[in-house]
Amino acid sequence: MVMAFTPVFAMTTGEWNHSFAALQKNRECVIAIPTVDMLDKVVGIGTCSGKDTDKFARFKLTPVRGKVVRPPLIKECFANIECKVIDIVKKHNIVVIEAVAACIDTARKVKRTVHAVGDGTFIVDGRRIDRKKMMASKLPYGV
Amino acid sequence: MVMAFTPVFAMTTGEWNHSFAALQKNRECVIAIPTVDMLDKVVGIGTCSGKDTDKFARFKLTPVRGKVVRPPLIKECFANIECKVIDIVKKHNIVVIEAVAACIDTARKVKRTVHAVGDGTFIVDGRRIDRKKMMASKLPYGV
Repeated sequence: MVMAFTPVFAMTTGEWNHSFAALQKNRECVIAIPTVDMLDKVVGIGTCSGKDTDKFARFKLTPVRGKVVRPPLIKECFANIECKVIDIVKKHNIVVIEAVAACIDTARKVKRTVHAVGDGTFIVDGRRIDRKKMMASKLPYGV
Repeated sequence: MVMAFTPVFAMTTGEWNHSFAALQKNRECVIAIPTVDMLDKVVGIGTCSGKDTDKFARFKLTPVRGKVVRPPLIKECFANIECKVIDIVKKHNIVVIEAVAACIDTARKVKRTVHAVGDGTFIVDGRRIDRKKMMASKLPYGV
């Protein structure tokens, strides 16, 4: 969930998730954004655990060193956002993170991302509608 | 942000938002989900304030009584989710809510929803990809 233009995000996870322990310990993470052509890899990655699987090896992904944080970026992804953990709201398993660096692969052919609906289906991005003028009063300078 | 299948959601808002005071006071809300044909109404609603505007009147929307909560549903929307506030994480302006009732207008012709990108553009839903079988281990019974 995008929290603000600052740029701060919130996400939810918990003790059952191997990544949660890493997040608590390292206080850093990378949000790697895949595209629709990578969907089967994404689902594969989401249905096994880093506890017993080297996901980079199994899914033939290339780790790339970040500019600021220690966890690696994923070369094959469309965009990578390096983040630091600001706070963990334990009561609700909400992790609040802040982006400290980001890069995007503009040379990439496929740029459509997917949204997980939650029931095992995924919605692919369709067309984009521009309402920047109507929204101007709500957008910070430079956006 | 969807938190769990229970079904719990989190959202972010703050003191600058007229709805925040109402949420704190009433501890109830309705998530009304519009479709792409309503986008200009949605942007209009998002760029004025309930503080000085009767949005139902101005945008020609029809309030419908909910089954559980006091705030009205919006008849013209594709779906309406009645929610109760579980908690407000003041430090981060995160409101945690739980759905207590929901309805969907299946007879409606337009069913495509839109995602606000944040820069004044909106992405319309494209095609849906089914990976229910691959995701089975992660889905609760009945989903």
